[in-house]
Amino acid sequence: MADLRGGDLSRLRQLNTLTAIRALRGAGPLTLSALAERTGLSRPSMKEVTDELMALGWVEEVPPSPGTMGRPARRYRFRADSGYLVGVDIGGHNIRAAVSDLDGRILAETRRPVAPDAPLDERLSAIEQAVSGCLTLSHTAISDVWTISAGTIGVIDVEGHVVYSAAVPAWRDLDLAGKLREMFPCQVLIENDSRLAAMAETRRGVAKGAKDVVFLHVGRRMGAGLIIGGKVHRGFGAAAGEISMLEEARWFDAPEHLQRCASVPPGTPPEDAAGHTLAAARDGDPVAIEAVERYVDDLAVGTAAMVLILDPQMVVLGGGFSRSADVLLDRLRDRLERRCMRLPEVRASALGDECVVAGAIDYAVEHLDEQLFTPDAGPLPVTR
Amino acid sequence: MADLRGGDLSRLRQLNTLTAIRALRGAGPLTLSALAERTGLSRPSMKEVTDELMALGWVEEVPPSPGTMGRPARRYRFRADSGYLVGVDIGGHNIRAAVSDLDGRILAETRRPVAPDAPLDERLSAIEQAVSGCLTLSHTAISDVWTISAGTIGVIDVEGHVVYSAAVPAWRDLDLAGKLREMFPCQVLIENDSRLAAMAETRRGVAKGAKDVVFLHVGRRMGAGLIIGGKVHRGFGAAAGEISMLEEARWFDAPEHLQRCASVPPGTPPEDAAGHTLAAARDGDPVAIEAVERYVDDLAVGTAAMVLILDPQMVVLGGGFSRSADVLLDRLRDRLERRCMRLPEVRASALGDECVVAGAIDYAVEHLDEQLFTPDAGPLPVTR
Repeated sequence: MADLRGGDLSRLRQLNTLTAIRALRGAGPLTLSALAERTGLSRPSMKEVTDELMALGWVEEVPPSPGTMGRPARRYRFRADSGYLVGVDIGGHNIRAAVSDLDGRILAETRRPVAPDAPLDERLSAIEQAVSGCLTLSHTAISDVWTISAGTIGVIDVEGHVVYSAAVPAWRDLDLAGKLREMFPCQVLIENDSRLAAMAETRRGVAKGAKDVVFLHVGRRMGAGLIIGGKVHRGFGAAAGEISMLEEARWFDAPEHLQRCASVPPGTPPEDAAGHTLAAARDGDPVAIEAVERYVDDLAVGTAAMVLILDPQMVVLGGGFSRSADVLLDRLRDRLERRCMRLPEVRASALGDECVVAGAIDYAVEHLDEQLFTPDAGPLPVTR
Repeated sequence: MADLRGGDLSRLRQLNTLTAIRALRGAGPLTLSALAERTGLSRPSMKEVTDELMALGWVEEVPPSPGTMGRPARRYRFRADSGYLVGVDIGGHNIRAAVSDLDGRILAETRRPVAPDAPLDERLSAIEQAVSGCLTLSHTAISDVWTISAGTIGVIDVEGHVVYSAAVPAWRDLDLAGKLREMFPCQVLIENDSRLAAMAETRRGVAKGAKDVVFLHVGRRMGAGLIIGGKVHRGFGAAAGEISMLEEARWFDAPEHLQRCASVPPGTPPEDAAGHTLAAARDGDPVAIEAVERYVDDLAVGTAAMVLILDPQMVVLGGGFSRSADVLLDRLRDRLERRCMRLPEVRASALGDECVVAGAIDYAVEHLDEQLFTPDAGPLPVTR
C-alpha cells in the first residue's frame, strides 16, 4: 500500500466531500449505501463525509416515511432551502426578478416596466421594487438571500462595470455591481444578458446537456450567447458574442424590417410593431411575409458566421421573437443549410421572456458550486 | 484517519503516476526530492511511482555526473527517446514531414513538391517519400515510430475521412486515415491543417500559453484555427473555422488581390505572384500597396467576425504570407481596431512554413498524453 501523507489525504477527503454534495444536489434523499454507490466511495468514508456536511448545515437527515417496517436506513438530502438566490433581468423595457432555492428552483417572479430612456435612479429603483416584490411573494427575507445575480444588455467587465451599452444610455461606464451592492446586503454578480439566457438553455431549456450552442437572443435588439465545451464563453475581455457590431453580418438593423413593415397599423406602439408583423405573416399577409423574409435573410448572415466559425451542435432561437418561432425557424434553417458546411440542430427556446432571469439564477447556482468545489477555497461555509 | 478502500487508492495512485510523468516531461533530470516537491507528493509515494515507471520503460535513472562528491542523489528523467513521432503537412503544393521524439523535439525534416492536381497515387507516394526521407535523415526505423500525425486542407471527420476539400480535388471523400494506415505500421492521426498550425502556436510559437487564440492561416488559401480555453476547437462536426465559406466575410477570394496585381511581372509562376506583390508593396510600389490594402480590407472582415464572436486574447497571422507580416500586420491591426469592441493582441507567427508540421507533431504529443493520462485507459504501455 502506498504511503499517504497529510497533504494527499486532505486533498482526497475534500474531493470526497464535493463528490457527495454533487450527488445529493442532483438527486432526492439518498441512503448512505446509495450515496456510496453513486460516488464510488466506501461506506465508512461516506459516513464521515455526511457527518461533516450535516455539522456544516449543508445536508440534513430525512425522517423515515411513517409505517416503514424494521429499522429504516437513514436518508440524507442537500438542504436547498438553507439559502436563497435572486436573479434579475435588467432589460430595456422591463425589469424582471425571480427568487430561487440553492438548487435554482424558482419560487416566485415579478416584472416592473421601465422606459428605455429612464434616468439611472428610476431604473435602479425599479430593480429594488422588482426584487422586494418577488421576496415578498415567496416569503423570503433579504437576509436569507446569498446572491443577487443580474443580467443586463451591453458589455460587462469582470468587476461588474458596464463597459458599453448601445441600448441603455444611462448604463454606460456604470459600476453596476457597486450600485447593487449598495442596495442589497449580499453577494452581487453581473453578466451580459444573452450569455445568461444561453446558460439557462443548457441547464433547463432545449439545449440541456449540449456542449456547443449558439444562442440567438432576438427581439427588438440582437444579441448572442455562446456555450463552448459546456461552458459559457465570455472571451478574454468579456466581450464575446458581439457579432451585431460587424456591419457585414447584417444583424444590427435586422429588426427594422419587422418594426417598419407597412402592414403594421398606424398608431401601434413601437414595442408591439414587430409582433404585429410576425402575426400578420403567420396569417399569410404577403407584405408581412416579405418583411419576415428580409429579416431572416439578415438574421441568417450573422448566424451563419457563428455556425461556420464554431460548428455548434445546436442553434437556439431565443428572446422575445422566439414566441414566433413557427414563422421564423424553418426560414432560418433553410438559409443556414444553404450557407453552412454542416447544418446544426436549430430549435426554438421554450423559456420565452424568462430566459435571462432563469439564466441569472443558473449563474448564481454555478457560482455557488464553484465556491463549494474549488479545491483551495478553504473550509465550506457554515449555513444558518 | 479516513478509511481508504481499494477503489479510492488505485485512483489516487494513478493520479500520482500521471503527475510524475508530467513533471518529468516538462523538466530535465530530477531527484526524488525535487520530484516530490514539484508534484506535492510524499517522497515514499514518489519512490514507488518512479519504480513503477522505470519498470514500464517510461523513466530512466540518469548516471551521476563524474566527480560528484559523496553519495549522489539518484536522478530520473522521462525517456523521450523511447519512441518517435512523425508529423506530415499535406499541402496543395508541398508535402512536408518531420520526425520528433516523444517530447515533440524535431530531429529532421523533409519537403517534397507535388502538383495541386496530381492524382491520388502520386500524392500518396510523395507522402511516403517525405516520411521515409526524414526517417533516413534522423536514423530512425519506421518500427520505432509510434504515431504518424497528418494535417491536410479541408474538413476532416473524426474517423480521418476528408469530407470536403475545395483545394485538392483528389482528396474529396477519401478515407485518408485508412490510406495512411495501409502505408505505415503505426497509429495514424488526421486533422485539419489550420487547426494543427494553431496548436503549434500555443505550444511552441508566439501564442505560447495563451488560452483563446484566433489563428489566421493565410497564404494562397485562407483558413482559420481556433484555440478556446487552451484547447483546439474542432466543433461538433469537426468543421469549425470555416469562415471563408461565408461570402459576406470576404475571405474566399481575398488572395486574388495579391495574385492578380498589375505589378506582378508577366510570366511569374502563379505560386510566386502574391509574394511579388507583397515585396513590391514593401518597396513602396503604389499599385502593389493598393492591392495589399484591398487584400487586408477583405482579410479584416472575416477576422473581425471571429474577434467579435470570440473576443480572443490574441490573433496570430500565420501561414505562407506571415513572412510578409511587416507589410500586413499594422494594416490588419488598424482595421480591427476600428471594427472590434476590443482589439486583441495581433502578432505574426514565427513558425513560418513549418507551422503545420510542428502542429502535427504537437497533436501527436497531445494524443500520447491523453493515452497516458486518461484515468480509465488501463495500464501504461510497456516501451521497448
